[in-house]
Amino acid sequence: MSNKYIDFDTLKFMLYDVHGLEKMLDKKRFEDYNKETVDMFLESIKDFSDRELFPVFKEMDEKPAYYKDGKIHVHDKVKTLMHQGGEMGIISASFDYKDGGMQMPLIAHTAAIFIMEAANNHLPGYAGLTQGAAELIIHFANEELNKKYVPNMLSGKWGGTMCLTEPQAGSSLSDIITKANRTDEGYFNISGQKIFISAGDNHFTENVVHLLLARIEGAPAGTKGISLFVVPKKRPNNNGSLEYNDVSTLGDFQKMGQKGYCTSHLGFGDNDDCRGWLVGEENKGLYYMFLMMNAARIAVGRGASAIATAAYNASLNYANERPQGRKLSSDGKKNPDEKPSLIIEHPDVRRMLLFQKSMSEGSLSLVLLAAKYYDLENTAESDNEKHKYKTLLEMIIPVVKTYPSEAGNISVSNGIQVLGGYGYCSDFILQQYYRDIRIASIYEGTTGIQSQDLLGRKITMDNGRGLELLTAEILKCISKANNYNNLIEYSEKLNEKIGLAQKVLKTLMPLAIKGDYERFLADASIFMEFFSLIIVSWTWLKIGIKSNEELEKNNYTKSFLKGKLEAMKYFFSYELPKTNGLAEIMMNMSDITIKKEEDYIN
Amino acid sequence: MSNKYIDFDTLKFMLYDVHGLEKMLDKKRFEDYNKETVDMFLESIKDFSDRELFPVFKEMDEKPAYYKDGKIHVHDKVKTLMHQGGEMGIISASFDYKDGGMQMPLIAHTAAIFIMEAANNHLPGYAGLTQGAAELIIHFANEELNKKYVPNMLSGKWGGTMCLTEPQAGSSLSDIITKANRTDEGYFNISGQKIFISAGDNHFTENVVHLLLARIEGAPAGTKGISLFVVPKKRPNNNGSLEYNDVSTLGDFQKMGQKGYCTSHLGFGDNDDCRGWLVGEENKGLYYMFLMMNAARIAVGRGASAIATAAYNASLNYANERPQGRKLSSDGKKNPDEKPSLIIEHPDVRRMLLFQKSMSEGSLSLVLLAAKYYDLENTAESDNEKHKYKTLLEMIIPVVKTYPSEAGNISVSNGIQVLGGYGYCSDFILQQYYRDIRIASIYEGTTGIQSQDLLGRKITMDNGRGLELLTAEILKCISKANNYNNLIEYSEKLNEKIGLAQKVLKTLMPLAIKGDYERFLADASIFMEFFSLIIVSWTWLKIGIKSNEELEKNNYTKSFLKGKLEAMKYFFSYELPKTNGLAEIMMNMSDITIKKEEDYIN
Repeated sequence: MSNKYIDFDTLKFMLYDVHGLEKMLDKKRFEDYNKETVDMFLESIKDFSDRELFPVFKEMDEKPAYYKDGKIHVHDKVKTLMHQGGEMGIISASFDYKDGGMQMPLIAHTAAIFIMEAANNHLPGYAGLTQGAAELIIHFANEELNKKYVPNMLSGKWGGTMCLTEPQAGSSLSDIITKANRTDEGYFNISGQKIFISAGDNHFTENVVHLLLARIEGAPAGTKGISLFVVPKKRPNNNGSLEYNDVSTLGDFQKMGQKGYCTSHLGFGDNDDCRGWLVGEENKGLYYMFLMMNAARIAVGRGASAIATAAYNASLNYANERPQGRKLSSDGKKNPDEKPSLIIEHPDVRRMLLFQKSMSEGSLSLVLLAAKYYDLENTAESDNEKHKYKTLLEMIIPVVKTYPSEAGNISVSNGIQVLGGYGYCSDFILQQYYRDIRIASIYEGTTGIQSQDLLGRKITMDNGRGLELLTAEILKCISKANNYNNLIEYSEKLNEKIGLAQKVLKTLMPLAIKGDYERFLADASIFMEFFSLIIVSWTWLKIGIKSNEELEKNNYTKSFLKGKLEAMKYFFSYELPKTNGLAEIMMNMSDITIKKEEDYIN
Repeated sequence: MSNKYIDFDTLKFMLYDVHGLEKMLDKKRFEDYNKETVDMFLESIKDFSDRELFPVFKEMDEKPAYYKDGKIHVHDKVKTLMHQGGEMGIISASFDYKDGGMQMPLIAHTAAIFIMEAANNHLPGYAGLTQGAAELIIHFANEELNKKYVPNMLSGKWGGTMCLTEPQAGSSLSDIITKANRTDEGYFNISGQKIFISAGDNHFTENVVHLLLARIEGAPAGTKGISLFVVPKKRPNNNGSLEYNDVSTLGDFQKMGQKGYCTSHLGFGDNDDCRGWLVGEENKGLYYMFLMMNAARIAVGRGASAIATAAYNASLNYANERPQGRKLSSDGKKNPDEKPSLIIEHPDVRRMLLFQKSMSEGSLSLVLLAAKYYDLENTAESDNEKHKYKTLLEMIIPVVKTYPSEAGNISVSNGIQVLGGYGYCSDFILQQYYRDIRIASIYEGTTGIQSQDLLGRKITMDNGRGLELLTAEILKCISKANNYNNLIEYSEKLNEKIGLAQKVLKTLMPLAIKGDYERFLADASIFMEFFSLIIVSWTWLKIGIKSNEELEKNNYTKSFLKGKLEAMKYFFSYELPKTNGLAEIMMNMSDITIKKEEDYIN
């Protein structure tokens, strides 16, 4: 079995060439970094992943995390990840110096976690949720909470989680009923249950800090009455000791994949002694959480891209080694005396590999673009610029979360198919990737929810100003691509599809205008698929431009760069055309999925 | 969790109304049967499945078949299936009386196995392969072999398998090297290894009869030098006792799904004492096997349809019980004081359920159509008629195998998505269906192979006469649908797509004519997807016609029939339009998947 789970050159090409990381490093915020120091960081992460994460990837699947005696027992490498990884900066890399971070660009931090996730997607989530929880405290909680919790979280000594989902509410956060009762002591008494809590507990971490949504007594119904609390498993006393805070682990969820990444069922306040500290203002919990959700959604897209990347490398390796079958000669027959071909020579296998390559590299580029927008927003020198990148980020986030997840399922499935029967066997790793990646389109907001966000909020926000901004970026790329003869065919195709998107929206928008939101959003998931294909084609056109530019230099092999151009052509020839069928579906304006008085699904 | 894995009314509607089984029962061959006796048979199978198969479905996944001490240990219910099921006729139902069968129409036999597969897809394969092996002996072997093996196989006392694949050859049967050395004793000495042998061994069956492909010394290279042999694990002596025939079980393959359906690695003749008896003539093995492969391919389509059906019923049940979220009102907001909706009321959930319903019922109808064509061929009263139905069967077989398998993966994935996080959890059954169904597009000829068969052989066979025949059937259906106002929109769409198919073929065929088979077949898998959507739309139009007819009678509830019409509309509105994008891909005539001198996938 191949040990190659990512192509490091591709990652660097995306970072430095496609997304111009060096230019970013020129900014004052990142003045302590240059290409060498960032590369050193990434290489140390790659070494760490090779040494500690990848070797236990299969084992973590075969010996899942489990619940026993009130605790979740996880693989020992979780400790290694949190402690050694924490020291290396996997939690704090992009945080401000003043908060104990390394003040590295998020795009570099993202690349680092991408490497780890490709090596072993069961592990980085423990650090990622800790990072997210710390970020919430840093941004919205008071000084005291910051001092008490953040340092131990950034070092990986304590874990962190996001506690949103409840048994009765599922994705519907407005139905949250976990209670927070006011006391005179500066804290609230918390009582309730949370489910599907990733990294919710483990048998060795000294403490787990939960960022929890709850409803303060008397708060308004729905999402407007939800507040955010810090609820540690053990509360730090003033003398530095830890006291049990009545947070109990009630069980776990055994899953089809990501079995080493535990999913817990937590109880708060079973003995009326669970304290929570309010983060920021009352009833603004969902607003705070949603700022964090952006990062979480990029993280899911990043993880799915990483799994699809690792799966691609595994099937590419197999296809390059396995001889089977022969080419058809011009009489449509095969000559049995001929040596068998490698399976990579069969067009159908090549098609599947090119899909895997274009899907996974396109996704990686998209994920890095989101991180870059974040960095640009964060380092903007004017409000205008800040707003621009914030808007661009908002626009692409649902796609960044969804495309790698949904297309990733298909991509890894193609990876299985490349191996044939072996792909389905436990001795080969493809089947694990297939099971692991399936969660991505569910957690942190399902594809249905992302699609409603895209069409219902993002496309329409600011009277369509976000869409205009994004379109302008795409048109800029198209006009640049027109300078290269070998790209004009593709830039024209992309341009045409922008026209098609406008046509689709022209058909759909009147529904929103007349207030028929249900029908307006009924095909949101189809729109997501349609829009994603256009966005990913744009990222490929950009990769195409950079590949052309680099062909005139000597930084990469010709083979490497031509491989990128091939993948671009594949995407435009085999993926982008699917927008045609999808547009037809939407413009049908069928009301078949709307529940009517007389209604039959049986 | 719901115990409903199929809708019996739907199955009967497909059998009697859509496919006119009663008319088939009028034929002389089936004179001993009428609707009542067939129903009794199906109901006994349903009872058996409820009682014996469904209850151990999850357990068989959790405790997979395993290899130990030279044997494969399978679940005890394999015995129940083979012995009790064998007595009920699950192996022999459609065989001739003269061969010990029940001479029932294959369409009824198919429906019976469909029920069992929906209940527990890990079990029926043991009987199915025994049936296939017996069929080969009956059709092609001499009287002596028939007498020796068939009765014990039809009763389920002995198992049977198909031994094709070898470690070095995979799907490329021309590279088979298992040897058959001639002796003067009427048998051949067999030596070699076979892998991926489903139901290849178990710890209790008295004997397993392998139908094995091997090469007789001096035979021509490639597929023209392959012969078929009966190679029992134990050879029956003339006194009726069994003697070990040097067939050893070398190991098994642990898989992502269908874990109770064992997959074995077999060795033949390790001690030079493995005897095989030639079936039919030398070097015709592949020809014989291919006749059987048709049945095996229908079986895979049937199994995939059954899994998708069971998954649909499980997610439909969940969607009807689980409240979550609310409808958007005309201001685009949700009212938190309103009672949560059932998730089946959300358009996105309805879309997924309608896909599951239309995919699984459309597939069932298609599988039954294949069985019906077989029955019509088998009972034809003229050569012309026989040839017609044989041709129609040949035409649809690759689609019957592939559509349920490929669309089934997506359908069950939608089923998971309906349940959200729970769908990914081991406590819910959807994730098992997702893992189980993934094998269907691999075994008995991968999707790539089916697609080459469809475009490379079936579409072009007899100078396109097969396609003409099939098109005539579709046009007949269209013209009948035109009698119903509520169907005209759909029959027109289908008609239009037939035109599109002709346009696509007009673009592709010149490649075949000029001998460029590699490019002609490069997009065969895309063509398969395209063609399948048209074929399944045709089956839905037929279902639409019958639903209209039945609406005027009282055999089914209105709700049941309108449900069928809704699913038909869904398929035409959301699935058939995808042909547009697929047609564009094919008509691009890209050569990107063809390996060229300068070639880059990296």
